[in-house]
Amino acid sequence: MIKVGIIGAKGYTAGELLVHLSRHPEMTVTSLMARVDSPEPVEKYHPHLRGSLDLSIEPVGLDQLNDRCNSVFLALPHTIAHQYMPKLVEMGLKVIDLSADFRFDSVKLYESTYGIKHLAPELNSTIPYALPELFRDNITNARALACPGCYPTSVLLALAPLMSHENVLDLDHIVINSLSGISGAGRAPNDHFHFPNCNESVKAYEVGEHRHRPEIEEKLSCLASRPIRLTFTPHLVPVTRGIHTTISIRCKENPTTEQLGSWYASAYEQEIFVRTLPPDEMPTMAAVNGTNFCDICWKFDPHHQMLIICSSLDNLGKGASSQAIQSSNILHDLPETMGLLHE
Amino acid sequence: MIKVGIIGAKGYTAGELLVHLSRHPEMTVTSLMARVDSPEPVEKYHPHLRGSLDLSIEPVGLDQLNDRCNSVFLALPHTIAHQYMPKLVEMGLKVIDLSADFRFDSVKLYESTYGIKHLAPELNSTIPYALPELFRDNITNARALACPGCYPTSVLLALAPLMSHENVLDLDHIVINSLSGISGAGRAPNDHFHFPNCNESVKAYEVGEHRHRPEIEEKLSCLASRPIRLTFTPHLVPVTRGIHTTISIRCKENPTTEQLGSWYASAYEQEIFVRTLPPDEMPTMAAVNGTNFCDICWKFDPHHQMLIICSSLDNLGKGASSQAIQSSNILHDLPETMGLLHE
Amino acid sequence: MIKVGIIGAKGYTAGELLVHLSRHPEMTVTSLMARVDSPEPVEKYHPHLRGSLDLSIEPVGLDQLNDRCNSVFLALPHTIAHQYMPKLVEMGLKVIDLSADFRFDSVKLYESTYGIKHLAPELNSTIPYALPELFRDNITNARALACPGCYPTSVLLALAPLMSHENVLDLDHIVINSLSGISGAGRAPNDHFHFPNCNESVKAYEVGEHRHRPEIEEKLSCLASRPIRLTFTPHLVPVTRGIHTTISIRCKENPTTEQLGSWYASAYEQEIFVRTLPPDEMPTMAAVNGTNFCDICWKFDPHHQMLIICSSLDNLGKGASSQAIQSSNILHDLPETMGLLHE
Amino acid sequence: MIKVGIIGAKGYTAGELLVHLSRHPEMTVTSLMARVDSPEPVEKYHPHLRGSLDLSIEPVGLDQLNDRCNSVFLALPHTIAHQYMPKLVEMGLKVIDLSADFRFDSVKLYESTYGIKHLAPELNSTIPYALPELFRDNITNARALACPGCYPTSVLLALAPLMSHENVLDLDHIVINSLSGISGAGRAPNDHFHFPNCNESVKAYEVGEHRHRPEIEEKLSCLASRPIRLTFTPHLVPVTRGIHTTISIRCKENPTTEQLGSWYASAYEQEIFVRTLPPDEMPTMAAVNGTNFCDICWKFDPHHQMLIICSSLDNLGKGASSQAIQSSNILHDLPETMGLLHE
Repeated sequence: MIKVGIIGAKGYTAGELLVHLSRHPEMTVTSLMARVDSPEPVEKYHPHLRGSLDLSIEPVGLDQLNDRCNSVFLALPHTIAHQYMPKLVEMGLKVIDLSADFRFDSVKLYESTYGIKHLAPELNSTIPYALPELFRDNITNARALACPGCYPTSVLLALAPLMSHENVLDLDHIVINSLSGISGAGRAPNDHFHFPNCNESVKAYEVGEHRHRPEIEEKLSCLASRPIRLTFTPHLVPVTRGIHTTISIRCKENPTTEQLGSWYASAYEQEIFVRTLPPDEMPTMAAVNGTNFCDICWKFDPHHQMLIICSSLDNLGKGASSQAIQSSNILHDLPETMGLLHE
Repeated sequence: MIKVGIIGAKGYTAGELLVHLSRHPEMTVTSLMARVDSPEPVEKYHPHLRGSLDLSIEPVGLDQLNDRCNSVFLALPHTIAHQYMPKLVEMGLKVIDLSADFRFDSVKLYESTYGIKHLAPELNSTIPYALPELFRDNITNARALACPGCYPTSVLLALAPLMSHENVLDLDHIVINSLSGISGAGRAPNDHFHFPNCNESVKAYEVGEHRHRPEIEEKLSCLASRPIRLTFTPHLVPVTRGIHTTISIRCKENPTTEQLGSWYASAYEQEIFVRTLPPDEMPTMAAVNGTNFCDICWKFDPHHQMLIICSSLDNLGKGASSQAIQSSNILHDLPETMGLLHE
Repeated sequence: MIKVGIIGAKGYTAGELLVHLSRHPEMTVTSLMARVDSPEPVEKYHPHLRGSLDLSIEPVGLDQLNDRCNSVFLALPHTIAHQYMPKLVEMGLKVIDLSADFRFDSVKLYESTYGIKHLAPELNSTIPYALPELFRDNITNARALACPGCYPTSVLLALAPLMSHENVLDLDHIVINSLSGISGAGRAPNDHFHFPNCNESVKAYEVGEHRHRPEIEEKLSCLASRPIRLTFTPHLVPVTRGIHTTISIRCKENPTTEQLGSWYASAYEQEIFVRTLPPDEMPTMAAVNGTNFCDICWKFDPHHQMLIICSSLDNLGKGASSQAIQSSNILHDLPETMGLLHE
Repeated sequence: MIKVGIIGAKGYTAGELLVHLSRHPEMTVTSLMARVDSPEPVEKYHPHLRGSLDLSIEPVGLDQLNDRCNSVFLALPHTIAHQYMPKLVEMGLKVIDLSADFRFDSVKLYESTYGIKHLAPELNSTIPYALPELFRDNITNARALACPGCYPTSVLLALAPLMSHENVLDLDHIVINSLSGISGAGRAPNDHFHFPNCNESVKAYEVGEHRHRPEIEEKLSCLASRPIRLTFTPHLVPVTRGIHTTISIRCKENPTTEQLGSWYASAYEQEIFVRTLPPDEMPTMAAVNGTNFCDICWKFDPHHQMLIICSSLDNLGKGASSQAIQSSNILHDLPETMGLLHE
């Protein structure tokens, strides 16, 4: 039984980790830590877990963590995780980081994107980007993992099968529109996420400036073996959970239905957690809510010679916590779906 | 005082027309008609109007309409309005049609888009497309008007100021993603709009096949004086009312902030109902809910040399009923904003 | 033309006042004040008003207010309004207070309910409780008005016609359950009203302790000419606007349908803004959204000898801002519905 | 391994059964049947189950069911289940009925409540009401079970611990207000549940006439050993899932905090799925969404000598499908929580 700790146990992703871990036959949660002054009951932050978990959320203490755990999830805000990572790795804990701090191959790109100096650049190169369907082999023997963000997961899974088809697709002309549920913004109340301000409304934000664009571009560039630049416009929609992404790619020539089908099939037909939907059954947030699935559907539009791909996932599920467990399963040499089927 | 009738009085757009007409100092509603077997109280379909309107909804009867009205709004499903139009125009009534039946310059394009034969092709050419900010002059002396759809209004107002700048913008590369509230689908219940099926979800639909694309392309082609083809992907979001549109246009060269500002200013600085927002204040559905405003903001993204424009309006307001009243005001030589400020 | 100012111009009730005032033919807004450091554009707080109102929100200054206005709305938090009231009344301004500070006949009850000392107890007795349908005569010649809260309006309008029928109804056994939209909690973000925390949920709060119970009991006691104590349980529901109240009263004997109808008819058949619905057409929030209507329906249940009354109104409309304008119309000897029909 | 079938596999409760069964270590689904003309893929009705379940939904055939299953869940509309029950019991299948058909002790009360003749009155008396926390012993050796409705579960769990305290509580004066998410109305689209009609609104319905009142009264009368009549007012609120119930009971004398605590503790301190919350932490729908928990909190209000109890559960979880599995676990002598912790 793997003994698991969480640092950053107050947030929504931690709450979701705990739901999935509670069903996991080979992992048991032994320590919850967060920025608290003294121990607090877990139900204060996660009322759905009342009575299910006999643990308090304690102030962060790495030594205690080391005593109690084999593995730790960092469910921390960006720019905090890299403060803890070196010590945790040194202690020999397997670390699964849900933040952005170790997602970038290029430390320079991380630093310019997040506007801070990286505190563990040498460690960064040893920590793989843990998107299992695309980079499974890197995960197997790692000491620590950098889990992808919610937007990047929805985009990368939708685009990865296409990156080697530059003869058909114009990879310089990728336009991405993503829609996120409000839980993606975290649990800190502010004016924008005050119910009467965001209910019954939609808004684009950080247009051309969202920090997930560099993450997406770096990974796609790697997959395509050439630099990729693209347009990424995120929006908030009034749902609690869910990401919906719509991607348009201009085609150089008309791909056939068979071509498209075979590209996606060869990428995903062995994958449990990526569901490619039948033609014209576009994905919905509802169908992936609470799950580790990413649903994908595509349609070629000959009128404008454009390929449209839609993908949907749960920003707290495949976009964060359940995907972190999927990767952790791989890291610990457990069956990849353990604890994750269903919901 | 202009005596106004409505055919199709049971639908959401009729309910919204009645709200705005009730505040209109120069229009009074004298007749409500719809597919009913016998007269029914208006509050059966529009409970918010209870006690405000002393009229029943009666079976359609064009002669009675002629007796009671000077002007009539057709709030009918597509392919029904053109059955009534010839008779109503012949009677001398001013007709404001909210359906698609007379929106197209090309009868052929209408017929291929809606899959039926047009019943009044000769009349079609005399009925202008009533989007006041773009085609105001055509409205003034018309006998009848064809009001634009909700998606097209949000797209055309966002794009019109750009159509003459092909030197800077690649008009062959326009990608439109629109999000619509559920009332846009009308009042007939079905599986897709059953609350538990569409709440907390988002879905793209009719990808590459939505009937508003040909309408948008025809009007943009007219404005640009050259054929325009584009990508238009509509989505449903779980709000009652509202359209949000995000448009991406590839640029041939980098437009300056001043250029962009001047293009929109010259189009809209005299317009009451189009609000161009300050930089980085992206439009929201909430700010236009219940109004005749269309809010627009743009941002040039030099990283991918892409211009992003967002617009938002109320699909029942500027996207349907209040815009119909705005055009009706012009047609009847009344102040254009009469009855429409505020909400 | 009455020149109107608002103190507390940043809140939701002020935003709603401005919508209704913008349609008012005899009132014009000349001054907006709030706790700001320097003038701020009105659209910063009320984006729907962009372009409609050429005024800034300025720091509070009573002398400037006096120069520019005949009348002032206080849209302030409880316990702030009574700081301004004496000076404003002394200046001769007609003051319409939307807070709780002058709602109570008993200063002692106010002080125990709100936990502070009343700063203008002598003035309190001269300021009537401005619920027009019940206390219209008191409003006519007042210098200042205390507008009722949203819950009390929904309860008092539902119960007032019954208070003189103690022979039939057990007035010691009134149970009230109210449901409020989240805008009723004001615009300050906090954990409870953070979208992911209150969306898709319902919660009772301040059970047995809500500050509107004493207000309701005092007014009902006045109407019944005997002390009334009751149970009032408020709940939050995930809608932006709306109050729905369900009241159960045990009956001593079975009231007939005719009796019930005549009690309500004699109270409201002349009232525009109270709509008594036909049997079995229970009120909805949707039908009163954005309006000054209160919808009421009742049903006697002989099985448990209980009378059930449901009422619904818009907490920002009849529950706050539009009702304040209705009372202001009376105060200024204008037609009571001016600017309020429709929506 | 218990082989399980479902008749009525198209509905929401079936979809939820399948989620929970997919996690159940001792049950496997072998047959799905419903009113279909020919086999249909399960994801047509339950898109969240795509790829998880290799079964079609077939036309109902009791013989095939018998071949493939040991146990069957009836997720059928009321008045259909009793058509199948006799045959299924005769075949020796363990039947868990989620409909109302066998919930009543009194066949006469069932017949007057549902307006039809009961087709298996003799069988009715052998089928226990499967609310485990209250009637666990009856479940153990039954051939078939009648699972409670969603409203009754929320009411009965809240009230059961009080039924033996008539010395303190006036059991003739129980007033119940319940709020239900829209999925409680089932999956058939109609005007009332069309998104734009029920979103952003609340409505009471079937006031004094809801079919769950007789069910509640019969069970409470049994628990109290005397006839109970009460007021039950159901409402629809715009959430997909969840029941929230608020109950007011007049007290004859003031119960102490200790008394109340001990009444509930003695009823539920051994119960996993009933969570009694600390004072003033009122239950929310959010905290029980997707789970088999029922959360309960109470507060005595001395001002009106009234005891207020709030309870919340998921109408598709503890109010239907997960509770059916809980009871099925008992029936099959499995650990009661198997497959149900967490979510």
